[in-house]
Amino acid sequence: MSHRPIRVALLGCGTVGTEVIRLLTQQADDLAARVGAPIELTGVAVRRPNKHPDVPAHLLTTDAAALVASDVDVVVEVIGGLDPVRGLLLDALTAGKSVVTANKALLAESAADLFAAADASGADLFFEAAVAGAIPLLRPLRESLAGDRITKVMGIVNGTTNFILSAMDETGAGYAETLDEASRLGYAEADPTADVEGYDAASKAAILASLSFHTRVTATDVYREGITSVTPTDIAAARGLNRTIKLLAICERVTGEDGAESVAVRVHPAMIPRSHPLATVGGAFNAVFVEADAAGQLMFYGQGAGGAPTASAVLGDLVAVARNLVGGGHGPRESAYAALPVRTIDQASTRYHVSLDVADRAGVLSTVASVFAEHDVSIAAVRQEGRRRDASLVIVTHSAPEAALRSTVDKIAGLPVVHDVVSVMRVEGEES
Amino acid sequence: MSHRPIRVALLGCGTVGTEVIRLLTQQADDLAARVGAPIELTGVAVRRPNKHPDVPAHLLTTDAAALVASDVDVVVEVIGGLDPVRGLLLDALTAGKSVVTANKALLAESAADLFAAADASGADLFFEAAVAGAIPLLRPLRESLAGDRITKVMGIVNGTTNFILSAMDETGAGYAETLDEASRLGYAEADPTADVEGYDAASKAAILASLSFHTRVTATDVYREGITSVTPTDIAAARGLNRTIKLLAICERVTGEDGAESVAVRVHPAMIPRSHPLATVGGAFNAVFVEADAAGQLMFYGQGAGGAPTASAVLGDLVAVARNLVGGGHGPRESAYAALPVRTIDQASTRYHVSLDVADRAGVLSTVASVFAEHDVSIAAVRQEGRRRDASLVIVTHSAPEAALRSTVDKIAGLPVVHDVVSVMRVEGEES
Repeated sequence: MSHRPIRVALLGCGTVGTEVIRLLTQQADDLAARVGAPIELTGVAVRRPNKHPDVPAHLLTTDAAALVASDVDVVVEVIGGLDPVRGLLLDALTAGKSVVTANKALLAESAADLFAAADASGADLFFEAAVAGAIPLLRPLRESLAGDRITKVMGIVNGTTNFILSAMDETGAGYAETLDEASRLGYAEADPTADVEGYDAASKAAILASLSFHTRVTATDVYREGITSVTPTDIAAARGLNRTIKLLAICERVTGEDGAESVAVRVHPAMIPRSHPLATVGGAFNAVFVEADAAGQLMFYGQGAGGAPTASAVLGDLVAVARNLVGGGHGPRESAYAALPVRTIDQASTRYHVSLDVADRAGVLSTVASVFAEHDVSIAAVRQEGRRRDASLVIVTHSAPEAALRSTVDKIAGLPVVHDVVSVMRVEGEES
Repeated sequence: MSHRPIRVALLGCGTVGTEVIRLLTQQADDLAARVGAPIELTGVAVRRPNKHPDVPAHLLTTDAAALVASDVDVVVEVIGGLDPVRGLLLDALTAGKSVVTANKALLAESAADLFAAADASGADLFFEAAVAGAIPLLRPLRESLAGDRITKVMGIVNGTTNFILSAMDETGAGYAETLDEASRLGYAEADPTADVEGYDAASKAAILASLSFHTRVTATDVYREGITSVTPTDIAAARGLNRTIKLLAICERVTGEDGAESVAVRVHPAMIPRSHPLATVGGAFNAVFVEADAAGQLMFYGQGAGGAPTASAVLGDLVAVARNLVGGGHGPRESAYAALPVRTIDQASTRYHVSLDVADRAGVLSTVASVFAEHDVSIAAVRQEGRRRDASLVIVTHSAPEAALRSTVDKIAGLPVVHDVVSVMRVEGEES
């Protein structure tokens, strides 16, 4: 092995960064053999050096900018957030230093700028760890399926919300109570907003859609609903239909009647059949379905978060970058040539489950059904059960434009025979 | 786009080759955009040109060697088998032409020679389609997990045998009858030997083990049992324990008591719990579990065979090769630096399910159990049921050396109190 060491700067040393250092150290010989050169950690940028007694003191610095500007080949970033990370990584890429990052929020907002800087200097930009933790997903989308036409990506990509929804399903408890429990167990952060409001999943959906459809999709293009409004009544309604509720990230290639293609990207809770493979994905695990024309349906499953799993993805990218530095060549560049229009949620087609309390008398079903018909929404299944003074009416629709479904529900809510709209939930995972 | 076209020779035009041509044609613009250069099919080598009316006549040739020697950048091989393909691909690689192949048998036998030729000339060698069809699996092992330590790969990698075992489980029919049905439905070839005797799965296991453990493993290193001896009695025994039987390819990194590592690779039918994710993988689908130190457990699922899914994997590799030709650099080289010793099956640790017909009288269980104890095989579970004149005794062992398990069963079969050894099957997918 005659190649000089590959010099690596690490930005951030929390749960993931600590594991990155551990793997770099423990596996040094293996990594050197796989790369064809030693990988040398030259510095670790942290906020409070005295909080990291396990890291050799001479590696620690509070000056991330100086570390990026120093004589390094690769910058590995596991700080997270937009600023000051954006500037640091742009500086690195502009200077021709390759970047490996786990930063979903930054990628979902600034991928175009980062790629432009990388392409200009010939540096690599890898970010497998940004989506679905340890699961090899972005590399398969960018490389393995590069000769295929991906039509849909749908999955569970946020562990916190999956833990909460799984627990609500098991215990029947409410959202607030279950969130408290998740926080106690370390499954939710002190400020859980990014997870429970779906921002984290939306960032990941934007990244998945960009890679799958060769189109720039940012987080603001993603329709987003979190899980804070999911009630025990919703969960019970799902259970009654042998379904369960999951927060799904859904990226679809849509072909209009005129043959023109567009892209729809959304994150929201949805009912899926308990027999669906995603239904059994519990706790902090992630799973993602990918559909492509020639490949058919693929599924990827594994740990979506956590220090070691995320570090595994970071290290895989680091080896790829290092191999390129040793052997020449570079990783895939931004591929946004298709530039498909991104649809709003109103233009997307979804299916609704609507659960109503209605008056228990003749003609109610026909009144409600006529509202669906008015809006051109086709009904797939109806279940009506009389009770003492009212009746429960559950309707599942066929696939219809979201805007039509919303108008339908709004109008139904105002009908005198409808006492209460108990639950409205989108439905996924079955034939429409 | 100023780069000259990437010139591609296709060897073979059966089910997969036909789909490769279709995708290259239908997606020409997309592929060119993704690669940065058009991909141009310059010739198709076939045995009988008049059998391919859909392929432009000027592309067809019976002279594969001349096509390989012509002015092409990449040779895509979907003929299969060892010779004459080995010579053709070695010629191509030696001449600096990159190779994309779906040929599991050749890779499992001659990967070292092929890689040596590729490394000498700087050509690429990709073979994602050789294992698990459309499922991105080899690229994740070679690249995404290159910074991790893979400890186990276990999966269903042969669709024909999975179809037959699934059908036997559903209908209770025998092996021969079910094979006939599979042949009628097109799930088994006219000569099914390679599939049903486990040769196909063994080739794939060798490839998976080589990549996972950075060690040369060939098909002859793989312990192999097919499914031809699986009986309805075995299936019923599994069902009685809420298990099902699958043909599994298992690649394990084994750490000895002295800390020395080795590799065990085997293909055989095994009982797995019906609750195990692999239990629900039906028909021609493939699924593979991967365990790595940092990543934890990952699963990959999808279509393991068929023209379009296999072509998807071929095209992904072709795009990778073409991108390297346009942008410089090359794919991963052979990584066999670890050179771990490969264990024989006798040294491997497995678990057995043993179903016996025994005399129904006092002392039988202790007699049988003492044989297990003699061989140092620990018993995990026992179920004894009296019948009129004899009893059914089912024993599941803890993990023990295969050799010890075999000796145990041999000795038990000779006991006077044992009337019949009804079923002996390895057990996987649970804690040992």
